[in-house]
Amino acid sequence: MQVIVTGGAGFLGARLIQTLLEEGQRIEGETITRVTSIDLAPCPLDDPRVESWVGDVADKALIERAMGDDTLAVCHLAAVVSSQAEADFELGMRVNLEATQALLDACRAHPRRLRFLFASSLAVFGPGLEQPVPEVVGPQPRSSYGAQKAIGELLVNDYSRRGFIDGRVCRLPTIVARPGKPNQAASSFASSIIREPLAGQRAVCPVDPDLPLWLSSPRAMVGNLRHALQLDGDALGEWRTLNLPGITVTVTQLLDALERQAGAETRALVDFEPDAAIDKIVASWPGGLDIERPLSLGFQADADVDTVIHAYREDYLNT
Amino acid sequence: MQVIVTGGAGFLGARLIQTLLEEGQRIEGETITRVTSIDLAPCPLDDPRVESWVGDVADKALIERAMGDDTLAVCHLAAVVSSQAEADFELGMRVNLEATQALLDACRAHPRRLRFLFASSLAVFGPGLEQPVPEVVGPQPRSSYGAQKAIGELLVNDYSRRGFIDGRVCRLPTIVARPGKPNQAASSFASSIIREPLAGQRAVCPVDPDLPLWLSSPRAMVGNLRHALQLDGDALGEWRTLNLPGITVTVTQLLDALERQAGAETRALVDFEPDAAIDKIVASWPGGLDIERPLSLGFQADADVDTVIHAYREDYLNT
Repeated sequence: MQVIVTGGAGFLGARLIQTLLEEGQRIEGETITRVTSIDLAPCPLDDPRVESWVGDVADKALIERAMGDDTLAVCHLAAVVSSQAEADFELGMRVNLEATQALLDACRAHPRRLRFLFASSLAVFGPGLEQPVPEVVGPQPRSSYGAQKAIGELLVNDYSRRGFIDGRVCRLPTIVARPGKPNQAASSFASSIIREPLAGQRAVCPVDPDLPLWLSSPRAMVGNLRHALQLDGDALGEWRTLNLPGITVTVTQLLDALERQAGAETRALVDFEPDAAIDKIVASWPGGLDIERPLSLGFQADADVDTVIHAYREDYLNT
Repeated sequence: MQVIVTGGAGFLGARLIQTLLEEGQRIEGETITRVTSIDLAPCPLDDPRVESWVGDVADKALIERAMGDDTLAVCHLAAVVSSQAEADFELGMRVNLEATQALLDACRAHPRRLRFLFASSLAVFGPGLEQPVPEVVGPQPRSSYGAQKAIGELLVNDYSRRGFIDGRVCRLPTIVARPGKPNQAASSFASSIIREPLAGQRAVCPVDPDLPLWLSSPRAMVGNLRHALQLDGDALGEWRTLNLPGITVTVTQLLDALERQAGAETRALVDFEPDAAIDKIVASWPGGLDIERPLSLGFQADADVDTVIHAYREDYLNT
């Protein structure tokens, strides 16, 4: 039985696919034997159980062809990231909203009530909120990316409530540290200021060093996404939106941890160059969310900031 | 200069149009000299300043033709109501979501930054909330109508933030009493149990008599909608969603007021026949919202439940 992962060529998508194909992974008692990636780029995994469809996730015909009778679930991770969706409104609306609608409608047309995992974001929140943000506090996004994700959340919940899908919405914290190169997410710097110095390169921090971030290691996040997909829907109750666990860490605390593990000269590779456009988006996101309910449902946060940096070094630098 | 009102054939739309055409009404210093109604039915007003376009509000070509150079503002009231959007998912999505998107895109294409008034609803909220519901509490709708309205709120806010429009979102309380016939709103009974007895006819209440309702007279609501349209956008700040004032009244209190004004025999015309489908929707709506901010912005609530019934008798029964 297969799972479809949109954005399967991305680093998070590819890690989720690997995790789903670990021995014995099941959904509703059925074993996951293959995964189909839909992405503009080919999925980098070299595994015969992974089928890579290269194309536009908003292409309805492509989605229909990919959605076989043996589909158990769709994990919808593909997105135009925050700064890019702010720079190109039409592109963000098409990929972040229309593609989500197209996927939901394809799932609705499927004979099985499919599990649908939607990757949302802490970018749905606005500024000035009580911290940690209580679960009832609603989206007041200050970016088109956040608005599009918040709309996706509402759609997944309504399709789920009506029984068209069995939905799960996960609001992802900022990932630290993402491997590879900087991307157009406004939060991209949060990875850069760890990843680049550890590679002996300079990095720029565009926000205030005291800014609290709500962050998660890729390791914890992928574990949580898998848990969200495998959890029984009844445990989630009627409202399917979850604040995925993270930890609250300021930029300074993040760099302190970098210094503890890699020395003062590594930390010194980070320059502070304020960027108003990035700061406006990132500073509108909360630095902490109430995660009592997700923790009680078995989701897990990283132990601390040192664990986050250690996980990056272990997973991507083999140190 | 003109204002476009979608849903101008409805009773609220027609009343709003009348109010906008009262002498001296202005928007941004410009006098409102005509109003264009877009609705499936013709606007009932007999006034040469009202142009009535009969057609589908999701019809992009129609919207474009209606949107002249002299347009100042769009009031988007047209909607498929709650029980109908629950019964016909596609229709609700098309009218409540796609038409809103089409209107927003037409406004974006207009050379002027148009004011855009979006009629949302207390149906965006879910059950189990602290009452009165604080402003930061977010939509967790338990109806497709509520989900579609909540999505519209996000779109209007994002289009507004980007400067495509100057948006205002008003979450309307339940109207009591709406003249005419029952409609497919789940809250239709709240008008029926006043209107029908006052006309000597029997009416059915499908919900618990202790259920608190958040309600407004048409008179107060139309005044508030006009105020929302004329208010300077800067006063609203960055987040353009407002809980329009209402008063909290249980069904029993509503009928007590009916009895005070029209006697026990009139009240006795109301029968209680629980309807689980209606009760599930209406009971998920909050009975009261925090309206400190809208009151400070000059919005007004009815004085009390007696005022609400008196307004109906005065406006529609001439008594």
